[in-house]
Amino acid sequence: MKILAFPETLDQARALARALGVGCDPVELHRFPDGESRVRVPAIESDSAVALYRSLDHPNGKLVELMLAASAVREAGAGNLALVAPYLCYMRQDKAFQVGEVVSQRVVGRWLAELVDAVITVDPHLHRVATLEEAVPAKRSVSLTAAPLMGEFLARRLERPLLIGPDEESLQWVKAVAEVGGLDFAVARKERRGDREVTVDVPDGDYSGRAVVLVDDVASTGRTLAAAARALRALGAARVDVMVSHALFAGDAQDHLRAAGVAEIWSTDSIPHASNVISLARPLAQAVRSLSLSD
Amino acid sequence: MKILAFPETLDQARALARALGVGCDPVELHRFPDGESRVRVPAIESDSAVALYRSLDHPNGKLVELMLAASAVREAGAGNLALVAPYLCYMRQDKAFQVGEVVSQRVVGRWLAELVDAVITVDPHLHRVATLEEAVPAKRSVSLTAAPLMGEFLARRLERPLLIGPDEESLQWVKAVAEVGGLDFAVARKERRGDREVTVDVPDGDYSGRAVVLVDDVASTGRTLAAAARALRALGAARVDVMVSHALFAGDAQDHLRAAGVAEIWSTDSIPHASNVISLARPLAQAVRSLSLSD
Repeated sequence: MKILAFPETLDQARALARALGVGCDPVELHRFPDGESRVRVPAIESDSAVALYRSLDHPNGKLVELMLAASAVREAGAGNLALVAPYLCYMRQDKAFQVGEVVSQRVVGRWLAELVDAVITVDPHLHRVATLEEAVPAKRSVSLTAAPLMGEFLARRLERPLLIGPDEESLQWVKAVAEVGGLDFAVARKERRGDREVTVDVPDGDYSGRAVVLVDDVASTGRTLAAAARALRALGAARVDVMVSHALFAGDAQDHLRAAGVAEIWSTDSIPHASNVISLARPLAQAVRSLSLSD
Repeated sequence: MKILAFPETLDQARALARALGVGCDPVELHRFPDGESRVRVPAIESDSAVALYRSLDHPNGKLVELMLAASAVREAGAGNLALVAPYLCYMRQDKAFQVGEVVSQRVVGRWLAELVDAVITVDPHLHRVATLEEAVPAKRSVSLTAAPLMGEFLARRLERPLLIGPDEESLQWVKAVAEVGGLDFAVARKERRGDREVTVDVPDGDYSGRAVVLVDDVASTGRTLAAAARALRALGAARVDVMVSHALFAGDAQDHLRAAGVAEIWSTDSIPHASNVISLARPLAQAVRSLSLSD
């Protein structure tokens, strides 16, 4: 089998290929002045297995280019076609909150499922659906979690840190991160008011002198994490750091976190970012192997 | 039936709805800070005919939103679903110029054909395929030309103008524009060197004192038209204007045209732009009627 890498995650795709002991070739992209994309895929052996590596943050343009590449790879005679998308898009739009609102998770999920045979992702934001299969009904789909790698990193890096999840939904996940290093954990309560406004109640407790880590699956605007950080600092936390699976960081998110007193930001390399400290190559390689994509 | 209009062409869609004597409702779009789109469609009567109006310049984001809207309209029980896309994207990428290059016209065309029952467009840039049906194999597809409306406009506006097409491919089309007003026409010879570099040989002839109009289907970087305008001015043309179907005008295209001595730029309203002087509402209405989309 072969990994085909889109340019923005070439390094990550190469690390996955090395972990698998397979080749990795780049997908070439060119953006024309009129906004159209030209896509060129490397040579594929007939009936061989191919994994397209592309993380789907800021997804719209990437989805169209993914469709163009997947179609070309199919046409070139690929046998099995997998998508390795460490960050999967449109997973949060899982319900029509108003009449007529499109349930984008379902539309995009079905579309991806038709485009490829298998989808591998990391910590998808599933809320109202229980499994990745429901959201992305591909023949095969694998949902990994970065929780163990995060727990190991935090236990190694900090002295007896306290992990805080930003909302009640995150309980099971924060628990999984904490368990690896035998760390303390708790969750806050969140109330959202629009895209960028949010209030967070942190749990009662003695924070004075403690290293607190806010742990979340994704940081987008950073407003939730900033509100929580401010509350924790006010309660006497010695330092507040942030650990996320997906460093989405839209707009001035990082400025908000710094302003709220966040010391360091750590993330996996699911989305290329200066905060990346955890490579997903090994768990992704395991997932690709589990699919037994034979040539 | 009902027209559903995306925000950037709300005025054009309303003009079409008026010409048809049907209703027009907006599709609501919201762009989240992380680059995902939320799409909300108006109420649809079960089994009713719906035409989605969206021009597909700068297409990638628009295509994903179109997919989200089309899926929701289908799910709401629309009977016939048409796409009115006065400018159709990816029509120029109709051949693999290098090994592995994706023939985007085919991929996007097939995808659109699955998304909707019918496609209506204006002056698609078809070169190596003869008909719109080949490029977009929808159940029904209609390709209009703005040539007659352009010819009428130019004959009314200028004194005995000479129309010049920028390359040999444009001959039939420039002829169709010229014929309406009984105007003189000729075509130049073009050589392309990359996205933005181009040379143009204008035909020999007496241009002194004449109003010359460069007529093309689409103006993107404007380099071709600018090169032709410069040559014509050098040969003594009294004025050089530009008339295009699609005012794509990527980047600093208009500055280049002005610098080359182009006096005025005129276009249809297929892509909203300051140069729009020709409304496509009437021919589009005729095309919609020809589809007999019954409720």
